[in-house]
Amino acid sequence: MVAVPSLFSLRHLLVLSLALNVSLILRALYHERGEDNKWWFCFKKKMMEDAESCFTTSSTASLHNSTREKVIDLDHGDPIMYERFWRQMGDKTTITIPGWQSMSYLSDGSNICWFLEAEFATEVVRLHKVVGNAVTEGRHIVVGTGSSQLILAALYALSSPDAAEPISVVSAVPYYSSYPSMADYQKSGLYQWAGDAENFDKEGPYIELVTSPNNPDGYRRKSMVNRNQGLLIHDLAYYWPQYTPISSPSDHDLTLFTASKTTGHAGMRIGWALVRDKEVAKKMTKFIELNTIGVSKDSQLRAAKVLKAVSESCGEENHKNGESFFKYSYNLMAQRWKQLREVVDAGDMFTIPQFSPAFCTFFGKETEPQPAFVWLKCEGDIEDCETFLRGHKIITRSGTQFGASPKYVRISMLDTDETFIQFIERLSAIQERE
Amino acid sequence: MVAVPSLFSLRHLLVLSLALNVSLILRALYHERGEDNKWWFCFKKKMMEDAESCFTTSSTASLHNSTREKVIDLDHGDPIMYERFWRQMGDKTTITIPGWQSMSYLSDGSNICWFLEAEFATEVVRLHKVVGNAVTEGRHIVVGTGSSQLILAALYALSSPDAAEPISVVSAVPYYSSYPSMADYQKSGLYQWAGDAENFDKEGPYIELVTSPNNPDGYRRKSMVNRNQGLLIHDLAYYWPQYTPISSPSDHDLTLFTASKTTGHAGMRIGWALVRDKEVAKKMTKFIELNTIGVSKDSQLRAAKVLKAVSESCGEENHKNGESFFKYSYNLMAQRWKQLREVVDAGDMFTIPQFSPAFCTFFGKETEPQPAFVWLKCEGDIEDCETFLRGHKIITRSGTQFGASPKYVRISMLDTDETFIQFIERLSAIQERE
Repeated sequence: MVAVPSLFSLRHLLVLSLALNVSLILRALYHERGEDNKWWFCFKKKMMEDAESCFTTSSTASLHNSTREKVIDLDHGDPIMYERFWRQMGDKTTITIPGWQSMSYLSDGSNICWFLEAEFATEVVRLHKVVGNAVTEGRHIVVGTGSSQLILAALYALSSPDAAEPISVVSAVPYYSSYPSMADYQKSGLYQWAGDAENFDKEGPYIELVTSPNNPDGYRRKSMVNRNQGLLIHDLAYYWPQYTPISSPSDHDLTLFTASKTTGHAGMRIGWALVRDKEVAKKMTKFIELNTIGVSKDSQLRAAKVLKAVSESCGEENHKNGESFFKYSYNLMAQRWKQLREVVDAGDMFTIPQFSPAFCTFFGKETEPQPAFVWLKCEGDIEDCETFLRGHKIITRSGTQFGASPKYVRISMLDTDETFIQFIERLSAIQERE
Repeated sequence: MVAVPSLFSLRHLLVLSLALNVSLILRALYHERGEDNKWWFCFKKKMMEDAESCFTTSSTASLHNSTREKVIDLDHGDPIMYERFWRQMGDKTTITIPGWQSMSYLSDGSNICWFLEAEFATEVVRLHKVVGNAVTEGRHIVVGTGSSQLILAALYALSSPDAAEPISVVSAVPYYSSYPSMADYQKSGLYQWAGDAENFDKEGPYIELVTSPNNPDGYRRKSMVNRNQGLLIHDLAYYWPQYTPISSPSDHDLTLFTASKTTGHAGMRIGWALVRDKEVAKKMTKFIELNTIGVSKDSQLRAAKVLKAVSESCGEENHKNGESFFKYSYNLMAQRWKQLREVVDAGDMFTIPQFSPAFCTFFGKETEPQPAFVWLKCEGDIEDCETFLRGHKIITRSGTQFGASPKYVRISMLDTDETFIQFIERLSAIQERE
């Protein structure tokens, strides 16, 4: 909460209150008439200036902001945008679990991944077949408590306990902000964060995290180091049709996916790995056994139901009727990116990535990438984009956390409609004001 | 599967088949008449000797065993014994989760443990109050993917990244068999397994895991090292009325519990920590954030419902009517321990721990400890109890895995009724035979 400074008088409060009243009345009018928002922002700016002139201490600015502007937190990639779709689906993905079900630790003792629910595995294979984004033949499925656990399991499985030193873990800048701390927080003697893959020139084995489409910038990626002794982990959390054109089924040694980004069910904490090598799958399973003795069965069962509904929604008929989950989410993302580009292009303060369209085998047409995050750059004199936007109550993640320049920030595109609209308005207002 | 040796003739098979027929007929008679099983075992032994004499190769012994005896696997502590109770409860603990619910990563941003479901926290506090086994006032609750994740989170939280060397992690022999590998599998520079707490004499800080009642032997425990710089993790997974008398509410700095052992829902993977120090709770939360970005919401909601049902079943009326979960499970455990003691006492091959009764504040009367595992000792010439029992197709966990002598094994007491009866019969048969 923002602390209330003790320095302002009744006069200050009155001016602020009047400004707010006028602001709210005009806001209502603007909404009713659907007028162009330029006039609105001009008026608001004038009112703000008048209100600001009443205050003499810098600490009162925060009061002023808090009265007028809500904090818009787009730091995390919480995918709550999809909630509306699942509400529309009604009972189709409602899961009922009786109290006596799924009590055992064990799911299938004959499977390498002994805690993998067969139903969930079936739906994973089915969905990849429907979407065409991954080869599942000849792969072992390892389920994880989200793909985070699977990244750690993969680092463990690909490193050797007998090595003279920890194996280097690299990823190209800008890399997912959690990779360095995930690799280093345990101070493991097995593996160690070694930074940007593009500048990596150490001899010997290494693990490269290839995130494609990339978090934060949304570009498609391949391995950067490309040497003999490289072990690759393909983090394909965003390789789904709503985010990027599906060009062909991914066909790597170790590939990770997660329900959080596929369907928006982050609270389930369910991810899966497609693993070619049996011994690697065994070691990943061992990691999860020592880490959490398996993965919630309730969430695996729920995930199975949700993935099944997604596959079924992609059936010919649903697809045509616009009920396909991917069509719905693709359209929503397209609309958001369009709105964002319009606002950004209206000024010269910010720039965002440009993507080339490509043929998407899933939609059977050319589509454009529309990532789950915007990798936004503050142009001109603004050196610290995160601090600048924070000043305008937009919480983002600084480029420095991705190994990049502070001129960049990562912003989530997956929040609610309400928050997204507020964000677009705020961005527009900033461009008008500054 | 057991390979079928090619060396035996039709004659061998016929003798075996006849022995099996007679054995089955007498078995049926015995069951009908409910006769003393001594006669039965004598007869069976004779038949077995006759059958054995037909075979000349050692490999045929396995065929002989596989025909007659099923493998009884009591290595793991899978608590499936409780399934029957939950079936009897009907719909009371059935959970229904709509597809659009609990999608966000976040549960409560204002809580230190931001992924903790409020409903679950409420039921944890309530259950501890009902049972009287833990002080929850002035404690932060941290939820984990089972208590395994919380043990690792606690090791992380109690160690210092700036320390010159990893902090020692100790526990008194016999200790939980997973502790050494959990502490060492990441080759962490933060903490390191240092073995038996009783022999620990290194200067400086250390972490002691105090498991009470202890896994594997069921005895109540206190810290063994008892020095100034000791940081304690109290693993109280079995401090519930069905396993041990509740003497008073536990009141430690860091205490762990798990649904797996409380209610038998191992497949949910839900554990919780009661943490006195705010900074420790924060660091544990950070660990889980980096490890799995939170804990399945589905399972937290289900756990809330199950814990609530347990608390409600302990109400005055239910308690008297014998419907209380703890009364049910206490009686079941009492019956199993009685049967086990009878079989063990009938011979001199095995010994098991003896416990003193104590007043249980929950039941309001004196009760006896009846642990979730038997810590069984092979007496006499049997030096390797695990191998010996494996020869009789009983799979147990060797004492060596608990830092103890191979004369000991740990055996789960929480399997199904069917498996438990088979185990008791097999143990009895071994004593008769040998």
